[in-house]
Amino acid sequence: MSGKVFGLGIGPGDPELITVKALRLLRAAQIVAYPAPEEGESLARGIVAPHLPGGQIEIAIRMPLAAERFPAQAVYDKAAAELGAHLDAGRDVAVLCEGDPFFYGSFMYLFGRMAERYPVEVVPGVSSLTACAAALGHPLAARNDVLSVIPAPLDNDAIAARLAASDAAAILKLGRHGPRIVGLLKRLGLAGRAHYIERATMATQRILPLEQVTPESIPYFAMILIHKQGEAHFREPAR
Amino acid sequence: MSGKVFGLGIGPGDPELITVKALRLLRAAQIVAYPAPEEGESLARGIVAPHLPGGQIEIAIRMPLAAERFPAQAVYDKAAAELGAHLDAGRDVAVLCEGDPFFYGSFMYLFGRMAERYPVEVVPGVSSLTACAAALGHPLAARNDVLSVIPAPLDNDAIAARLAASDAAAILKLGRHGPRIVGLLKRLGLAGRAHYIERATMATQRILPLEQVTPESIPYFAMILIHKQGEAHFREPAR
Repeated sequence: MSGKVFGLGIGPGDPELITVKALRLLRAAQIVAYPAPEEGESLARGIVAPHLPGGQIEIAIRMPLAAERFPAQAVYDKAAAELGAHLDAGRDVAVLCEGDPFFYGSFMYLFGRMAERYPVEVVPGVSSLTACAAALGHPLAARNDVLSVIPAPLDNDAIAARLAASDAAAILKLGRHGPRIVGLLKRLGLAGRAHYIERATMATQRILPLEQVTPESIPYFAMILIHKQGEAHFREPAR
Repeated sequence: MSGKVFGLGIGPGDPELITVKALRLLRAAQIVAYPAPEEGESLARGIVAPHLPGGQIEIAIRMPLAAERFPAQAVYDKAAAELGAHLDAGRDVAVLCEGDPFFYGSFMYLFGRMAERYPVEVVPGVSSLTACAAALGHPLAARNDVLSVIPAPLDNDAIAARLAASDAAAILKLGRHGPRIVGLLKRLGLAGRAHYIERATMATQRILPLEQVTPESIPYFAMILIHKQGEAHFREPAR
């Protein structure tokens, strides 16, 4: 009998925003794997650190910065093989996923490599999308709103077209694209409807009016939520 | 000192998919409020039933079917006043929200009525969006995909335009719109990329190939996930 892979959504950063199910499976697994930078601490491991019982085998899946020499493809191939050896030996493996495993998460690259050979269960988590909305006190979408999730690396024309086709939008993966996105929202007349947040639910969370953001210092874990209608939209229930 | 309102995301249906934070706040609140039909059981209360410690005051916010005689507006006005009386007396109120409070949730109508007068904390939850993806074993979005959430009550032209502007989409609130949506997806050539699920993570969860779904019997709590690219898209990590 091979072991089982659990892709655990561990939520956006606050250790208490893990689900009861993910917490139970995390504590029970013999092997705990998580993404990590080439050197230094794993954000995902840091989120669950208060919950770890000790005595588990930990596997950091380290992503080198120099992707030319060592492509991400090879990192996931190697990680899948390493986890596979534990699964073949009958050990269960919990893979930590910041937010939700299937919402822009790197877990899906392991999932694509392992789901045909091993039993895999994906446990959904609180995504950054809803965590940002909660922290901002700003509803994402109501009634028949179309909500679009738009990665900031897309070009301006693509982003403008997606915004035009939506009532509400979340722009994520800002980082170095921040200055361009802030400029675009101003030109589109949407800056006044934009809500900005960094590192939602983490100890370092920051919420700022968009005009007070220094675009050059926007981190990767930042999000802009936009709803084209004002707050009254969220007071009037559907008929 | 007035009490505090906690809008608690309780997840999509599986009682274990509540967060540790929501569970703690739920158990500590003196008052527990939840949406309910005009007669009968509340789905939200059913989800947290295994967690209730007993001894709490419960308030069902009942939504009449005959909205002409008693509009939703009036239901939320009355509920806000009833909860307000408890808050004025210094009692904390936990409001249960299926999925996430700000992702198409009715909590936002209470939020709009209470946030200026009382302290309100919104606790994000696992949304049906990510729960459906996890149950289907189908990633929502990767890399620079645009993901759109599209309510089924919109007309066909609007839905087709939003699908055209997206890499991935979730169509929700299906119910009586199911037959029309299934027909539309077939005409657009997207049926082969569509994944159908009902009541994700509940005991009555059903997953079916779209061609085996009886469109006339699609419930409200059903979702169709679509990604225009095949599974290989989720195997190749970003460069």
